[in-house]
Amino acid sequence: MVQSQQKLDRVLVRVEELTPEKADQLIWVRARIHTSRAKGKQCFVVLRQQQFNVQALVAVGDRASKQMVKFAANITKESIVDVEAVVRTVEQKIESCSQQDVELHIERIFVISQAEPRLPLQLEDAVRPEGEGDEEARATVNQDTKLDNRVIDLRTTTSQAIFRLQSGVCQLFRDTLIKKGFVEIQTPKIISAASEGGANVFTVSYFKTSAYLAQSPQLYKQMCICADFDKVFCVGPAEGWKAPHCFYADTQNSFQTEIQTVNKQYPSEPFKFLEPTLRLEYTEGVAMLRAAGVEMGDEEDLSTPNEKLLGRLVKEKYDTDFYVLDKYPLAVRPFYTMPDPSNPKYSNSYDMFMRGEEILSGAQRVHDAQLLTERALHHSIDLEKIKAYIDSFRYGAPPHAGGGIGLERVTMLYLGLHNVRQTSMFPRDPKRLTP
Amino acid sequence: MVQSQQKLDRVLVRVEELTPEKADQLIWVRARIHTSRAKGKQCFVVLRQQQFNVQALVAVGDRASKQMVKFAANITKESIVDVEAVVRTVEQKIESCSQQDVELHIERIFVISQAEPRLPLQLEDAVRPEGEGDEEARATVNQDTKLDNRVIDLRTTTSQAIFRLQSGVCQLFRDTLIKKGFVEIQTPKIISAASEGGANVFTVSYFKTSAYLAQSPQLYKQMCICADFDKVFCVGPAEGWKAPHCFYADTQNSFQTEIQTVNKQYPSEPFKFLEPTLRLEYTEGVAMLRAAGVEMGDEEDLSTPNEKLLGRLVKEKYDTDFYVLDKYPLAVRPFYTMPDPSNPKYSNSYDMFMRGEEILSGAQRVHDAQLLTERALHHSIDLEKIKAYIDSFRYGAPPHAGGGIGLERVTMLYLGLHNVRQTSMFPRDPKRLTP
Repeated sequence: MVQSQQKLDRVLVRVEELTPEKADQLIWVRARIHTSRAKGKQCFVVLRQQQFNVQALVAVGDRASKQMVKFAANITKESIVDVEAVVRTVEQKIESCSQQDVELHIERIFVISQAEPRLPLQLEDAVRPEGEGDEEARATVNQDTKLDNRVIDLRTTTSQAIFRLQSGVCQLFRDTLIKKGFVEIQTPKIISAASEGGANVFTVSYFKTSAYLAQSPQLYKQMCICADFDKVFCVGPAEGWKAPHCFYADTQNSFQTEIQTVNKQYPSEPFKFLEPTLRLEYTEGVAMLRAAGVEMGDEEDLSTPNEKLLGRLVKEKYDTDFYVLDKYPLAVRPFYTMPDPSNPKYSNSYDMFMRGEEILSGAQRVHDAQLLTERALHHSIDLEKIKAYIDSFRYGAPPHAGGGIGLERVTMLYLGLHNVRQTSMFPRDPKRLTP
Repeated sequence: MVQSQQKLDRVLVRVEELTPEKADQLIWVRARIHTSRAKGKQCFVVLRQQQFNVQALVAVGDRASKQMVKFAANITKESIVDVEAVVRTVEQKIESCSQQDVELHIERIFVISQAEPRLPLQLEDAVRPEGEGDEEARATVNQDTKLDNRVIDLRTTTSQAIFRLQSGVCQLFRDTLIKKGFVEIQTPKIISAASEGGANVFTVSYFKTSAYLAQSPQLYKQMCICADFDKVFCVGPAEGWKAPHCFYADTQNSFQTEIQTVNKQYPSEPFKFLEPTLRLEYTEGVAMLRAAGVEMGDEEDLSTPNEKLLGRLVKEKYDTDFYVLDKYPLAVRPFYTMPDPSNPKYSNSYDMFMRGEEILSGAQRVHDAQLLTERALHHSIDLEKIKAYIDSFRYGAPPHAGGGIGLERVTMLYLGLHNVRQTSMFPRDPKRLTP
């Protein structure tokens, strides 16, 4: 076991750096045994490091004994090994590996961490495109088995690509906001009253009293505006920022490999968008739905199926996967939404959609304590529970607007996936609390 | 009330941009009334925007009537106003304002959001250095009043500086880590079992069952290492990242103004550090404490007073406010800490200290399922509760190390403050759940 007793002067080369420029060099690599296949006096292994892999070979000869070939052949899949090997160029490209132009001729091999012989799922099954399983009698892995064994499922090239892309998207949002002068804030996760109401409020035992889990940083972001921070954002498990909409092109350039990797398992149409972004009013959306046969009232909210249908209608008419639906009916929005001054049935609020699903909800917020009180009472909210919030607007409050965007939903919809559990590292739902 | 009915073509100039280059221009500014003083036919107001302020003047004459001067004089402090004014250079610097070389001659003034006349605290009292209050019979504001009225307290130049610095520190950490190839992850906040034990575990009602609030992302960060993410970090309310230690110089250059602003209210010695960072072994620390008269055992943990004392001794001897104490006794560290292979009483773990207080705790983590099981049993941890965690190490686990750093503590200690509530935007403690 590696306990860092002494410092070895092994320089570990990364698998992605194994290219013909390293030909004939003797190098060390730490990687997983992805697959292993013994064949007479030789053993072929594929060494994997994240999304990269390389073919390696132990052959009986000057540097390796029969025992060593046998030893290598017996190392369990997914074990981590340190390998000393010579890099050799190959005549025919190795199509099955990311490093196609070289292979490793192993001289020494050490097991750093041995995997148990029975894996709960096979990585090659977990990345197989849906549908392929049945046709060719090859296995696929269902979503629950994947999530039960998430630590192994996350090792697949698809998962690696999804979460590297997600980290990149997060960073692009943040960089954009910081450049625009936004201040990143940390908001409390435990609050004294379930201020926004709703059915799924989580109660927390808190020392000698009880409290609630904050469902959203929304009210605190507004309080920071009242506290003169001017432009704020925060990143949390549920929702995030004001939304810039200039990240698509950047993402497509910076994460081409990741997008392609995910598409191999989950094929989807490339994400289309217009510049400037298409903006429709709510009434236009309702008219399009009615023309398609949907019956709905003027002030009725969009159901999820109607959102998806509208997404398809918009795609047909405007050829975009991204649009903004503006001026929602006041009745279907939270109490802190600013009414439309020219038509009291509507509001200064909007949703953004990707591939027919909402990714961001935003609005001008009420910044007047009296109107806010009226709106809260209209929504039957207990004023005592939101006292600190409403008081924030009593001592001069800048007019402001904002929104919350779901990072995991953006990643899912951008990649054309269909289940947010795929873009949530350790997802939670009413039935799942582990791993 | 601003309800965004139409788009005004006012270009709002920022207060910090009001310099002699804008002399004689007619401009619009949206700012707060910081102070206001009527004097005969004139009214002097100071307009404030975050940490910047400028003097402005309404005087009876061509552009302003007597009524307007009276109107301006009656606007309550902290109200937000839109002002149309001519920028004029001044002969004598205005020492009391951040914009010292110009003043505004107001032609029109609109109240955008009116503050209630009685403020719960005065900003000038809230920024007064401790101690000054008594001597000159001027008020200071105690910590609880500040926190009860946090939205107003956060408007002071000191608070603005603290949280802008904190946002910057957070971004510097993150940029450094992203450049080094780290992946940002989001870890679950609700978990099925209180895996790390301890007294202050928060129970959450979760649909038809109960669950716990995750106290730290520690175990999930390790699971991501087992899932091949190689280097990961996450930012959360309690703790964060692996720690680079190269941000001090950057911080001192980029946030000079913020540091000076905070020092005006809370004077402190400049933060000193050595390059390379001083590293002491735990046994050396104990020896220094014993030489100073402290009685303690070899395997005893450092109490907070002893940590502070050691910080002073280290400062005296080495002239640094930052050092690493390495090789803690195994007995005082969590079960997942790697034992020191050369001395089983100690461990491959360390703390980092700033001004004698711990800011980061880190270690090589056990990556072997069997040793981890033994260590958990030794700590009387229910194996059933950490099954998913331990199982993560059964299928090949890379040797790894990591740590968690407290952003709010770093900000506090770097600035030489003495209470973490000052660097926490909406602090929580057993008695405080609001605002």
